[in-house]
Amino acid sequence: MTASTFPSTPTLPLARSSVVAAHSKIVSLVHRTPVLTSSSLSESLPCKNTLYFKAENLQKGGAFKFRGASYSLSCLTPEELEKGVCTHSSGNHAGALALAAKQRGIPCYVVMPDDSAQPKIDAVRAYGAEITFCAPTAPARAATLAAVQARTGAAFVPPYDAANTILGAGTAALELLADAPGLAAVVAPVGGGGLLAGTALAADGTGARVFGAEPAGADDCARGLARGSRVEDVDARTVADGLRTPVGVLNFPVIQEKVEAVVTVSEEEIFEAMRLLWERMKIVVEPSGAVAFAAVRSPKFQALGITGPVGIILSGGNVDLSKPPPWTVPATTPTSTE
Amino acid sequence: MTASTFPSTPTLPLARSSVVAAHSKIVSLVHRTPVLTSSSLSESLPCKNTLYFKAENLQKGGAFKFRGASYSLSCLTPEELEKGVCTHSSGNHAGALALAAKQRGIPCYVVMPDDSAQPKIDAVRAYGAEITFCAPTAPARAATLAAVQARTGAAFVPPYDAANTILGAGTAALELLADAPGLAAVVAPVGGGGLLAGTALAADGTGARVFGAEPAGADDCARGLARGSRVEDVDARTVADGLRTPVGVLNFPVIQEKVEAVVTVSEEEIFEAMRLLWERMKIVVEPSGAVAFAAVRSPKFQALGITGPVGIILSGGNVDLSKPPPWTVPATTPTSTE
Repeated sequence: MTASTFPSTPTLPLARSSVVAAHSKIVSLVHRTPVLTSSSLSESLPCKNTLYFKAENLQKGGAFKFRGASYSLSCLTPEELEKGVCTHSSGNHAGALALAAKQRGIPCYVVMPDDSAQPKIDAVRAYGAEITFCAPTAPARAATLAAVQARTGAAFVPPYDAANTILGAGTAALELLADAPGLAAVVAPVGGGGLLAGTALAADGTGARVFGAEPAGADDCARGLARGSRVEDVDARTVADGLRTPVGVLNFPVIQEKVEAVVTVSEEEIFEAMRLLWERMKIVVEPSGAVAFAAVRSPKFQALGITGPVGIILSGGNVDLSKPPPWTVPATTPTSTE
Repeated sequence: MTASTFPSTPTLPLARSSVVAAHSKIVSLVHRTPVLTSSSLSESLPCKNTLYFKAENLQKGGAFKFRGASYSLSCLTPEELEKGVCTHSSGNHAGALALAAKQRGIPCYVVMPDDSAQPKIDAVRAYGAEITFCAPTAPARAATLAAVQARTGAAFVPPYDAANTILGAGTAALELLADAPGLAAVVAPVGGGGLLAGTALAADGTGARVFGAEPAGADDCARGLARGSRVEDVDARTVADGLRTPVGVLNFPVIQEKVEAVVTVSEEEIFEAMRLLWERMKIVVEPSGAVAFAAVRSPKFQALGITGPVGIILSGGNVDLSKPPPWTVPATTPTSTE
């Protein structure tokens, strides 16, 4: 990646207080999404955990990504803001950044692989961002982004591997822990690791144990923790398109230090969790968004014997609704990265 | 109808204060459902009304019906409660009453037409109620219910045509008006009229104008208002299965007195409203639940020139998710009554 990130970086190492500070800067910009409960889903678990679902699928732009995008923008100087922001993404980060930029009335430039899903492209365009398409490879994305940045002077807002993105993402768990005090555990999905690292920071010192949830078909984070070093690429085969990317450089050590374990789940477990969320909770959750609930339902998690209340982050709800419900059709899962 | 309702009836005529009193009795039993907003849906309207959606699809049992059922139970004496409750319903009221009875640990007997949808039957059974099936006609329902009541001594809790059902239903609008102060208008769907009459009572004196929303294919309420007397039966042809029933005897005069107008919508308008709610708001709303939003989007409503904030009651979210999204298939709409 040759594009340079913007200069406003917080003090490292990251801490819970940095998440609290980030929250105070974006509280008027983001939705305080509701924390939902379901007695039937809670009672269905062997450990009868009372479940608290943080519904980030109801966040602006339909995913938690809007938090990191909003916070990243709030750290830019007026001069930087004037030139606008740019990123590369095939998924929710692109839409989130475009929406955050629209909210501030600044330009946004998005590099998208030319095989991106049409609804994601439509969303980015509807938010008024300029799209540059490129070949669906990491080098093509980096080169195209560098060219866009050279032309526009826009600040690069990375999808997950950046301190401000992590801190912004962590504000979801911060709200969850405030609205549902006394959680025994918090579970977040892990793709690039922005949400999981942010969640771990937010939970630091609260007494809540922190777990990641990952598709077995994209288990680079679990494997990295097992071997003690980050796995740099992943041959992702999962319907959970938001979690196909390898964990980021900044994200991995935070997860290594503060997350107790990453629980992997099968594609079938993801579909079943997703169906239950739609059917019982009446909310539209995308496959990646259902992975943390799938993990909590799994025998692996239930075998831990945690009997207290558990917080679950439903990370997003952007699905193509012109197609039949995804659990009714066999999973065909092209590989791609965020 | 030979079955007699239970004796605990509030003082007539019904007033806003009765809804406030009802709310205080059920506040610990029901979910205070969130009030959701969507800037993209608000901005899409010609009058740019800021929309406040009361998400009763997130209510326990998946519909506002749980409010009326809970309040009706809270008005019974200990002796009455011991014998249990009964009702006839093919829809959300059956599940709501079964769940409210389960919550109190009392027996519940439900008479269902033998052509009821399987998911509704499953829900009632899962909540532990005893189901008696009957032929899908009004006389068969009444006779079967009378037999159940004679055998069990259970109190009949009507689906909509009862003061306590109306007052319980009105608590949804009461919460909406408290959480979104200063509404210019509130819009609720009308089938039997429990929700609309309750909404009108809750809004009384608040300054919010009250409108009903009805499928054009089951427009008995709109026709009744036009001719000045209740239409007693309706040849309902609409996908909105919760709104196929004629307005109740108690409900109609309240609506006549306090509701400004009932706006009718086409099947296409219902499907489009439903799709937008799933896609933009990430919530699962059933056809009946989308009718109020369809009305607000309609040229008829927009022509009124109301430019202030509008509250919309999303009444329920119980759909059969084993089938493709309903807007992707042609509407085939069997007729039935609640």
